[in-house]
Amino acid sequence: MIRKYVIGSPMETDSVVVDITPSDGRIPKFKADEAGHMLTYVMDDADRIYGLGETVRGINKRGWHYVSNCSDDPNHHEDKTSLYAAHNFMVVVSAKEVFGLYVDTPGKVEFDAGYTDHSILSVILEDFDAIAYFIDGASARDVVRQFRGIIGKSYVPPKWGFGLGQSRWSYVNEDEVREVADRYDEAGIPLDSIYLDIDYMDGYKDFTVSDEAFPDFKEFVDEMKSRGIRLVPIIDAGVKIEQGYDVYEEGVAGGHFVKKEDGSLLTAAVWPGRVHFPDFLREDTRRWFGDKYKVLLDAGIEGFWNDMNEPAIFYTEDHLSEVFEKIDGYKGRNLDINGFFEFQGLIDGIPNNPEDYRLFYHEKDGLKVRHDKVHNLYGFNMTRAAGEAFERLCPDKRILMFSRSSYIGMHRYGGVWTGDNASWWSHLLLNVQQMPGLNMSGFLYSGADTGGFGADVTRDLMIRWISFSIFTPLFRNHAAMGTRRQELYALGDSGAFKKLVGLRYALIPYLYNEYLRAVRDDDVIFAPLAFDYPDDERACGVEDQLMVGRSIMIAPVYVQNARGRHVYLPEGMKMVRFRSMEDYDEEELPGGDHYLRAELGEVLTFIRPGCSLPIVTPAMRVEEIDMKTLKCLSYGGSGDYEFIE
Amino acid sequence: MIRKYVIGSPMETDSVVVDITPSDGRIPKFKADEAGHMLTYVMDDADRIYGLGETVRGINKRGWHYVSNCSDDPNHHEDKTSLYAAHNFMVVVSAKEVFGLYVDTPGKVEFDAGYTDHSILSVILEDFDAIAYFIDGASARDVVRQFRGIIGKSYVPPKWGFGLGQSRWSYVNEDEVREVADRYDEAGIPLDSIYLDIDYMDGYKDFTVSDEAFPDFKEFVDEMKSRGIRLVPIIDAGVKIEQGYDVYEEGVAGGHFVKKEDGSLLTAAVWPGRVHFPDFLREDTRRWFGDKYKVLLDAGIEGFWNDMNEPAIFYTEDHLSEVFEKIDGYKGRNLDINGFFEFQGLIDGIPNNPEDYRLFYHEKDGLKVRHDKVHNLYGFNMTRAAGEAFERLCPDKRILMFSRSSYIGMHRYGGVWTGDNASWWSHLLLNVQQMPGLNMSGFLYSGADTGGFGADVTRDLMIRWISFSIFTPLFRNHAAMGTRRQELYALGDSGAFKKLVGLRYALIPYLYNEYLRAVRDDDVIFAPLAFDYPDDERACGVEDQLMVGRSIMIAPVYVQNARGRHVYLPEGMKMVRFRSMEDYDEEELPGGDHYLRAELGEVLTFIRPGCSLPIVTPAMRVEEIDMKTLKCLSYGGSGDYEFIE
Repeated sequence: MIRKYVIGSPMETDSVVVDITPSDGRIPKFKADEAGHMLTYVMDDADRIYGLGETVRGINKRGWHYVSNCSDDPNHHEDKTSLYAAHNFMVVVSAKEVFGLYVDTPGKVEFDAGYTDHSILSVILEDFDAIAYFIDGASARDVVRQFRGIIGKSYVPPKWGFGLGQSRWSYVNEDEVREVADRYDEAGIPLDSIYLDIDYMDGYKDFTVSDEAFPDFKEFVDEMKSRGIRLVPIIDAGVKIEQGYDVYEEGVAGGHFVKKEDGSLLTAAVWPGRVHFPDFLREDTRRWFGDKYKVLLDAGIEGFWNDMNEPAIFYTEDHLSEVFEKIDGYKGRNLDINGFFEFQGLIDGIPNNPEDYRLFYHEKDGLKVRHDKVHNLYGFNMTRAAGEAFERLCPDKRILMFSRSSYIGMHRYGGVWTGDNASWWSHLLLNVQQMPGLNMSGFLYSGADTGGFGADVTRDLMIRWISFSIFTPLFRNHAAMGTRRQELYALGDSGAFKKLVGLRYALIPYLYNEYLRAVRDDDVIFAPLAFDYPDDERACGVEDQLMVGRSIMIAPVYVQNARGRHVYLPEGMKMVRFRSMEDYDEEELPGGDHYLRAELGEVLTFIRPGCSLPIVTPAMRVEEIDMKTLKCLSYGGSGDYEFIE
Repeated sequence: MIRKYVIGSPMETDSVVVDITPSDGRIPKFKADEAGHMLTYVMDDADRIYGLGETVRGINKRGWHYVSNCSDDPNHHEDKTSLYAAHNFMVVVSAKEVFGLYVDTPGKVEFDAGYTDHSILSVILEDFDAIAYFIDGASARDVVRQFRGIIGKSYVPPKWGFGLGQSRWSYVNEDEVREVADRYDEAGIPLDSIYLDIDYMDGYKDFTVSDEAFPDFKEFVDEMKSRGIRLVPIIDAGVKIEQGYDVYEEGVAGGHFVKKEDGSLLTAAVWPGRVHFPDFLREDTRRWFGDKYKVLLDAGIEGFWNDMNEPAIFYTEDHLSEVFEKIDGYKGRNLDINGFFEFQGLIDGIPNNPEDYRLFYHEKDGLKVRHDKVHNLYGFNMTRAAGEAFERLCPDKRILMFSRSSYIGMHRYGGVWTGDNASWWSHLLLNVQQMPGLNMSGFLYSGADTGGFGADVTRDLMIRWISFSIFTPLFRNHAAMGTRRQELYALGDSGAFKKLVGLRYALIPYLYNEYLRAVRDDDVIFAPLAFDYPDDERACGVEDQLMVGRSIMIAPVYVQNARGRHVYLPEGMKMVRFRSMEDYDEEELPGGDHYLRAELGEVLTFIRPGCSLPIVTPAMRVEEIDMKTLKCLSYGGSGDYEFIE
């Protein structure tokens, strides 16, 4: 049962696709303050909060506060309140009631999940205008399903999007890309795609390809595709200001770029230096920008990742000038604690400055709207531009698409990756803990940069990380410029990686089918144990194991030098300790606590009673998977597993 | 058995106090490269590495690399190679052998503990000159004891230094300090000291007190002491350049400040703006600077913390001028990825710039030595200056002293705190994992900023953190300016904190005695389980439990929203689940794995077989502890516990 409450005069975000008649009266369970900016709910000690999508900390969000404010911040520390996304949906699970709340507003919202006061959940709107959807349900899963029912079906990627993707900022030319493919093939490690980060472009200009790096791009795309490997180029939000560059000139001519209050174009800067930002909130701009993907589709490209679309801003021309003027005032002074920190703050405040987001305007449904009021819709609508274009340009083909910034609604057009994480053990655990919340918000095609984007990975961390991310739909190894090489052939003996990636490919029929099922049923793929064992208090407290689809539970190892871990089984299950698809132990374990060995390269998987886990013989490419090799690992039941496609 | 190897012409660091005749030939177990800059040891899969003092990651240091290079870096992330200290001692535990290595050199040393290649331990000297001490031992503990035997006895603090200290950057005047004391007393939470961070000074000038904030400092110190509370002021390494300021003028007149190559004084900047740095490597400078503490001792002060002594440098005058000149070159340019990052790098490179550490010189044993070659000795010798002064000025009194930067040898003069950590759950675990390594290097009086220095704490994090840090000798709550108030009366119902701090005070007889015993026996207080159960493979892998003294093991909870945890018992023990000194459950548990409840405020403590844990009735001050209230919790044995003082 979903009730809709209109607060003020909210803007249409297009995140909800079902017409619901607004209810009168107050939002159930919550108390509103007089100004109507804050809703509060009193929690019992054992109440838990799920959802909130891409955020830091545990699966149960209780005990911290979160601000929906899409931010380009690579420091995913425990004290961050905002990452790249705004996912304003949460489920409250109390002993006495279960309900969900979705706050649909393009501006800032704070969810204080017991941070200020451990017993108080508050939802604080920066602006007055919002639509609140209150969802009563029989269970957390039921609340999620109802919610997902009103926001539209999740995006389905092409099946090859379940294969391994190899990425690095950046493979600089076709020789290097070819070498990556060759070395994966030589190592016998399955691979389906190689990502092109910003350096494939000509001067960081969207929808261009560097002639020097890729003399005949189409031919190279074909060459790679003929060996079963797709190239996936990046597209950034900012369009370089450069005379003679068609996208820039068309954008200016068509009035597609965001403007300042005086009607002049905003000049910001990202990779290419000065850029304009398309006004993705306008339908005609989305259509125009979306059509630009055609030049790459025509070259044979079948997948993209949309980046820097919070939008990230290195600086705005206006603010940078001000800073340079102010800097002069610090010259020759005795800079003490105040002066020096002020000076540093001046410089640190150049990128992604909140003031800059108040400098420019969108045209939304014919109205002029200041950016900060609709900030969280920007990445969504960039990806929507692409998704809508793909529907027009290649309606019969699924195109791979995921984005860094997102808002609920974008899940219909693409997935997300969790942005610029680091090669830290704690970020492996964060990856585990982020998956359920992302799924609840509709983002089924999601995953983190396996091995970590920033910082230097180690072989053992990569093995453990892969041992988890073989279960995530988006399965990509990506690293930043300047970090240790982390391609799977570059970290010592590649045999371990061959086995683990092989296991991923063995699991693809299961993972892909569970994905389609979750889309069909508006369900999650990754569930907290609490979703399946709501009456088991211990299970409800587990933060480092996940249900993956209907058949299995996993228990990743995320501690350096660990050779095993404690696992809680809410019921008897069959453990499969995989070393590879061919090499595994099976053991029936009773419910309760266990310490289980899990050496490097061993993947602990638990089959639920009456369930089956289908596996196939791995292939080097998803398309080469031979379903005739399928067999089922089962724990009781019929031993069958049903495919829905 | 310790053997000493001289590599090149090493400088005397005074870290070792025992004369050992150098051995000829090669360092056992290790292979040296031809240049002699790198020692390597081939590890088996199960080999572990302990020690390295104040560093990131787990107790077992294997799998990362560490660079001894004292650094003022508040971001204690997993990928950091250097924190504030240089502790070049490690113990290698292999199935076939146990040995230790101490690399005594004031320059940079890298310990690659299986980072580059998981099977290779390398020690890489930046400079050629070092003394290597190789220690053969029967066990890890034996190696540690032998090592500690050559570096001199660890510092012993006054007993009140085991009480709770409350700190914040900064309590700005006596009213605020008085309020802190009042509110602790009102809440019934024991407290022994209040720390004065930089704002107590007059313009951040060492050995001055702001007249405005503390009109009669001595009287105020007396007032606080009369209620049993000591004030502990901070002392910084840099001396403000200001005409008429006696320390500055004496320092210039006496030639005590470090100089550049041309003989002019180095002008750097920290809190007060421009400062000079005393040359603590000179004995006469240490004596001069040490005597300055007298002005505060005379005011009744009995404890200090030495800070910013890596030394931290906000900027040097020379480098800042260069930066300002370069900045002009960026004005009006189209700053793209290269230009903008270059510009940002220019500014980010101002503080603690490696080039600045090559700008100035020390006089060491009559020789002129460039700072970077002896960088790691600076904090050590600042604290030595203080320690030597206290021996002269008040030989019959123990003065509280700890430092941010340190080198082995400094442990004879004071303790360390682990610097600017954050209010993160992961930093609670880091605190747990840092204690054994610090202890092995001789730093027994140590601890972290409880609750975290940077970022905002939550009530539950503070409860869990305190539940651990009640066991650390240095027990201080400290937070940065701008963060949420984290005094224990400011985080909701203070009853939980009263109980936990009360438990600390109940444990002080045990903790203090185990401290004295560890000093006497050159032992650690905090041991990895591997030290006591070397043949128990599972125990050797435990990274989140510690032996504390001879009688107990602890298992802290460091996970948000957890209501218990898994604990591995290497043998049967008696669990005491403390809620307070008066309120606890006792349960005999067999060896093996257990999931144990530990609600917020419950402290899991395990008494070893045949051992006793003495506890007393808590008092509001350490000095008020009544030893007649002592009782013993025991698990078998005689039920006695022996006090050595």
